[in-house]
Amino acid sequence: MEKAIELAKKAEGINEVPIGALVVKDGEVIAEAYNLREVEQRAIAHAELLAIDQACEKLNTWRLTGCTLYVTLEPCPMCAGAIIQSRVDRVVYGARDPKAGCVGSIYDLLNEQRFNHQCEVERGVLAEECGELLTNFFRKLRKRNK
Amino acid sequence: MEKAIELAKKAEGINEVPIGALVVKDGEVIAEAYNLREVEQRAIAHAELLAIDQACEKLNTWRLTGCTLYVTLEPCPMCAGAIIQSRVDRVVYGARDPKAGCVGSIYDLLNEQRFNHQCEVERGVLAEECGELLTNFFRKLRKRNK
Repeated sequence: MEKAIELAKKAEGINEVPIGALVVKDGEVIAEAYNLREVEQRAIAHAELLAIDQACEKLNTWRLTGCTLYVTLEPCPMCAGAIIQSRVDRVVYGARDPKAGCVGSIYDLLNEQRFNHQCEVERGVLAEECGELLTNFFRKLRKRNK
Repeated sequence: MEKAIELAKKAEGINEVPIGALVVKDGEVIAEAYNLREVEQRAIAHAELLAIDQACEKLNTWRLTGCTLYVTLEPCPMCAGAIIQSRVDRVVYGARDPKAGCVGSIYDLLNEQRFNHQCEVERGVLAEECGELLTNFFRKLRKRNK
């Protein structure tokens, strides 16, 4: 998760909402990404989605069985859906997202028995540090826009 | 929707699950895509997600305000999430997906008031034709694998 926080800080450095994600398989980091929505002007360029896409490319398969995704913020519905689609085994996240989180907050999509994949989840890892990155980012943004 | 069905048939032609999608703005088709999950071995290569990403690239913005997405099958959680993220105004879909559909079947994510975007939805347009494409595809697949 420390590595995911470093990635989130890279996003912050280019004025993106600071969220970082990585995919690990057999103890090896196979994908690293951070939020690029504003820079790339792509709605789908969330950290998790980019990391999953990189991991598929690296392993040359859409099935990320045996992989763990680490992400600093609770995934949104799109990213939770991408986790289901890619069959990631395990998700570890930092801060909760009460506004859009779909891994426990608004919905719990990764534990939905009606879908064809469920996923082990660990919540709240370095949550405070992950959350502070976001709080500070938005505080600065509001100041700048005053 | 007829155009989306044509796109779905292109997917079928390369042995992909036949699902097609397009994005329309001001009466003009600005993005066309079909499912490429197997060919590209990318978990995120669903028709809708690819069409949304193309539309963002074309308009050079992540905000697809004023756009309508047409798709032959009810979107999954990932694609419904991408619709929310991209602020698409309206979604028109063909067949229902009782196994993974998140626009009325398992969930109704595009009508969830707790998210920061809701979306107009029209269901069941050419549903029979859209659904038959899928049924026939899976029937052939099962025969081949016997």
